[in-house]
This record gives sequence, C-alpha cells and structure tokens, in this order.
Amino acid sequence: MKNEKFYVSYNTVHKLVKGLAQKIMKSDFDPDVIVAIGSGGFIPARIIKTFINRPIYAVGISYYGVDKKHKTHPTKIQWIDEVQEQLKGKKVLLIDEVDDTRATLGYCVRELLKYNPEEIAVLVLHNKLKEKDANFPVEIKRYFPALEIEDIWIKYPWDAEDIEDHTNREKAMLLNNG
Amino acid sequence: MKNEKFYVSYNTVHKLVKGLAQKIMKSDFDPDVIVAIGSGGFIPARIIKTFINRPIYAVGISYYGVDKKHKTHPTKIQWIDEVQEQLKGKKVLLIDEVDDTRATLGYCVRELLKYNPEEIAVLVLHNKLKEKDANFPVEIKRYFPALEIEDIWIKYPWDAEDIEDHTNREKAMLLNNG
Repeated sequence: MKNEKFYVSYNTVHKLVKGLAQKIMKSDFDPDVIVAIGSGGFIPARIIKTFINRPIYAVGISYYGVDKKHKTHPTKIQWIDEVQEQLKGKKVLLIDEVDDTRATLGYCVRELLKYNPEEIAVLVLHNKLKEKDANFPVEIKRYFPALEIEDIWIKYPWDAEDIEDHTNREKAMLLNNG
Repeated sequence: MKNEKFYVSYNTVHKLVKGLAQKIMKSDFDPDVIVAIGSGGFIPARIIKTFINRPIYAVGISYYGVDKKHKTHPTKIQWIDEVQEQLKGKKVLLIDEVDDTRATLGYCVRELLKYNPEEIAVLVLHNKLKEKDANFPVEIKRYFPALEIEDIWIKYPWDAEDIEDHTNREKAMLLNNG
C-alpha cells in the first residue's frame, strides 16, 4: 500500500457490510438488536438492517460536547431510553465505521455491559492495525471487522466534498494496487 | 417517467443532500441540531453533517413494534434522552428519506413540537406528489425536499441486495429518460 489515503466508495461500504452480514448469519450469533454508534456507525447500521432486520438503537458518542469543546474522553451525546429494558438479556450487535484507537468502542462497550446484555458483538468496516489506547473487556467474544488495514487515513464516502471525484480516486487506487 | 421503479444510487443521494445543505446554508435557517428519523433518515443525516456540522439525535419511528407486529400508527422505537433540554428553544432540522403518506413525518413533527423548539424545518430526499394522510402543523414553515416525484416505488441504495446491479439500473433509467 503506497497511497497516503485509503479511499472507500459507497458501493464498497455496501459490499463490505453485506459480506459481514452473511458472515454473521452463518455464525451462531443471532443478534436481537443493533446499536449504531453515531455518527460513523449510522450508515453501516442502516445497510446491515437490509440483510439482518433488527431494531436499530442509536447512541451518539463524541469527543466534542454539545458546547463543541474538545474533550479527552468520549462523551455521550445521545443514549438509549429505558436502556435497561432494551438491552437486558439481549444479544447486541454494536456497529461503528472504524476501530482506530479503540477508545470510543471500548467506552461504548463498557457502558453497554452495565445493562447486562447476554452478549455484545462488535462490527466495524475497518480495523486499523496499530497499538490501541483501550482493550475490549473479556466479555467481548466476537469481533467482526470487514477489513484489517494499516494505520492510514481512511476516506469514507460520506465525508466527501465531491463524491464523483472520491469514487474515481478509489477506482484509481484499486487499479494501482491491483 | 415510464419506469415502474425509480432507482437512486448512493452517489445521487450524496449529491441531493449536498444540494439541500447548500440551499439551507444560503437560507436564513441555521439549525442548532439535526434529528434523524430512523432508520431511513440515518444516511441522509450523516451525509448532511459533512456540510452542516451539528449534533445528530436519532429517533426510531416504526409501524412495527419491538414485537414485530404491524401497527396502524407510528410507534417510537427510540426517543431522545432529556429531550426537553435538548430541543427547547432550538432550531431543529428533521430528516427522513421520503415524504410518502406524511404519516411518520407528521407524527414526528407533532411529538417534537411538544418540547417547544424555536423552529422545526423538514428535509427529505423525495416528496411523493400524492394525497397525504396527514398535514404538517402550521408551525412548519420550511420544507426542503430535494426532489418532488410522482407516486412511484423509489428504490434506495441501502435496500439493494446487489449494489452494482442497482447502480447500473439507475444509470440505464437516467439514459432512458435523458
């Protein structure tokens, strides 16, 4: 991989999520609910619902408070109403777009475990192969990254100013690496 | 329009949302928060955040309860924590993918108005030109549909089994109509 940035198109995201859905459906993990970590997990979560149709709860996690000031720890922007009843004894599929430092995912998993779900499985599009700032607790037994990738800048389609240019850059990148 | 189904690719969705964001930024409406109606509003809401960076709250609205039984009225699957404090006096941009019968949007607007926001503006990708089952209350003064469209089956990309086939069908459709 010689590129400085790793471009991912929407259609690639869709195919990665479909592949993960098929992997989960073939596994013995049958989730009751999907929890999407906002805002990065919204798009993968909505796509997986096409293949694994479960209610989606969204949680907003950010390093920026509503006051827009940067914080050193993740902050809850939105949480789940009556979360105790929604998660207790449930099999939860927790979704985010990327596992970078693992700080957000680790925080979210630890918070959700407080409500005694039966299990939490973690799904991400990309896991960056790097030293992580946090580990998953031992309760996390299933981890579904669609791709493992070196520590590089991943350019997701939803962040694109010009989506046609973005899509073409992915195409050129894949041709160069093919 | 001779097609029975109206195909929309991800890149088209992205461009429609970007166009709406530019329209809103040029207007005198400056939202404080985005409220995404799940699950259809998740993807447009995440995209608009790229252009108008505001906190996203997700609300889950469905005609199916958590028990999966169909209901005649919309049901809240998820609501906003401390909603009174989050919305009071705020300018809210409420997002869904389609304005079909207006039942879900109308319900959601009426529920949100209870928390005394300063204003709620409604944004959708497509407004179907048909008789609606519900009207917006008079408090709704701004309505941003990216496209007005006849009452036809809109095929969104996130519902696609085969996303390459879906994208090609949009291309063929646009060529036929061009």
